[in-house]
Amino acid sequence: MSSNSHLTAPTQFVEANGIRYAYRRFGATNGTPLVFLQHFRGGMDNWDPLVTDGLAADRPVILFNYAGVASSTGENATTVDGMADHVAIFVKALGLTIVDVLGFSIGGFVAQSLAHRYPDLVRRLVLVGTGPRNGEINPDPKVLQVAGNPMPAEDDFLYLFFSPSEVSQAAGRAFWARRHERQDQDPPSSLETLKAQAAAIGEWREPRGERHAYLKEIRQPTLVVNGHDDIMVPTINSFHLQQHIPNAQLIVYPDSGHGSQFQYPDLFVAHTSLFLDKA
Amino acid sequence: MSSNSHLTAPTQFVEANGIRYAYRRFGATNGTPLVFLQHFRGGMDNWDPLVTDGLAADRPVILFNYAGVASSTGENATTVDGMADHVAIFVKALGLTIVDVLGFSIGGFVAQSLAHRYPDLVRRLVLVGTGPRNGEINPDPKVLQVAGNPMPAEDDFLYLFFSPSEVSQAAGRAFWARRHERQDQDPPSSLETLKAQAAAIGEWREPRGERHAYLKEIRQPTLVVNGHDDIMVPTINSFHLQQHIPNAQLIVYPDSGHGSQFQYPDLFVAHTSLFLDKA
Repeated sequence: MSSNSHLTAPTQFVEANGIRYAYRRFGATNGTPLVFLQHFRGGMDNWDPLVTDGLAADRPVILFNYAGVASSTGENATTVDGMADHVAIFVKALGLTIVDVLGFSIGGFVAQSLAHRYPDLVRRLVLVGTGPRNGEINPDPKVLQVAGNPMPAEDDFLYLFFSPSEVSQAAGRAFWARRHERQDQDPPSSLETLKAQAAAIGEWREPRGERHAYLKEIRQPTLVVNGHDDIMVPTINSFHLQQHIPNAQLIVYPDSGHGSQFQYPDLFVAHTSLFLDKA
Repeated sequence: MSSNSHLTAPTQFVEANGIRYAYRRFGATNGTPLVFLQHFRGGMDNWDPLVTDGLAADRPVILFNYAGVASSTGENATTVDGMADHVAIFVKALGLTIVDVLGFSIGGFVAQSLAHRYPDLVRRLVLVGTGPRNGEINPDPKVLQVAGNPMPAEDDFLYLFFSPSEVSQAAGRAFWARRHERQDQDPPSSLETLKAQAAAIGEWREPRGERHAYLKEIRQPTLVVNGHDDIMVPTINSFHLQQHIPNAQLIVYPDSGHGSQFQYPDLFVAHTSLFLDKA
């Protein structure tokens, strides 16, 4: 059971409230499981095997698809809180009582909502390429346009997730190759997923009470990670997360963008392991 | 030679241009030496043995006193560039051709000047609790008043270097005990050192050309570290350093201040070792 890896772990399903949530579990048998929450439109195959297998060396890793995404059934939630509700249902359906959570981009929004609204379910929080509710926005229309391409292609990810430098672009192509190593890839997500998650992002951009107030109520130890210039969720948002979450560490990597964890997989695994394994 | 430690390494002297620079060298025999550049008014005994010995496990560590500080002779420089000139003279007098540099607070200003103006002398740069020339200032007059106390006491360091939380204050007291473990402590620095370094800080606060332009010319891989709320050099300055130095990684620790590296010595050593040892 613990011998599986990113490339070999079978896709499994757990049913709750009539929804079949797709997931894969691999890595160490013991330790607090680490649940990965994926980016806009993404599924289980959009992670980097170097990151998932690297972190799975010392703990169980669980990848999954939100309700309605790719191989998961059900309706896509149209708010971040609704997405977090699905995560809570999924985690409980697996029989788990507490997990660590790594959320990337919109997955980081969901992770914040989960940690805030289901505090007993989350031990530690890793927020990557993400930002607070009502955070700072990049007004460049090209980002939205590329992120909404009907079938996201390599060039789209190179633009959205990496810096324009040669080194970063080469790292992006290497990531793209790794991300396709698995043979039985999940189906892509649907147009419904795009619309629902776009609505959830829109709602997350709205104020709710005093700005950043909910961050002060996140009690979990938190690691915030981003690249030097994130064009999807501007990097200053990561600084704001660190400044307002009571127990948060911030790491920003050089010459990188939204997907810095895929540009520096070894360093990201080392930093995140140090954080998760701390007594 | 390599069996010495923070507590046992003898104070040595090297002479250049009529100045006797005091230093201590300990740790591994091989590897790029790491030179520590100290904070306002501080000397070799103001470092944390857990940090210096931790980093000395895998490289030679060199502590030293700027010209005019404590056991070093000579006149105190009154500009940051002047202080960096002394560091360059000292490093060359030791017969070293390239070093890593860890600068804390004003030592971080000096480290920037050294890396910028003596690029061949510096391999990698660690900037702790510091900021760029013409950076953001904390206008609270209490900080200046406490930092200028005739004989800096434990309570002054607890206020200036740590956060007000119980946990941070306790970590500060533990640091204070560790910092006094060595028996043959260096003499304290003089009023002349206070005046000269205050002048150097004042000059560093002045603009020189386009803001942050020199940072873009710092070519060394750089690690920037600070605490969550640094009242001496506001934490946003660390974000600005990361944003403007071309190859810089940023780490900000939770619930901490100017002296976060003394609050999290083990984590700081782990993070800094990962950075310095990277291929």
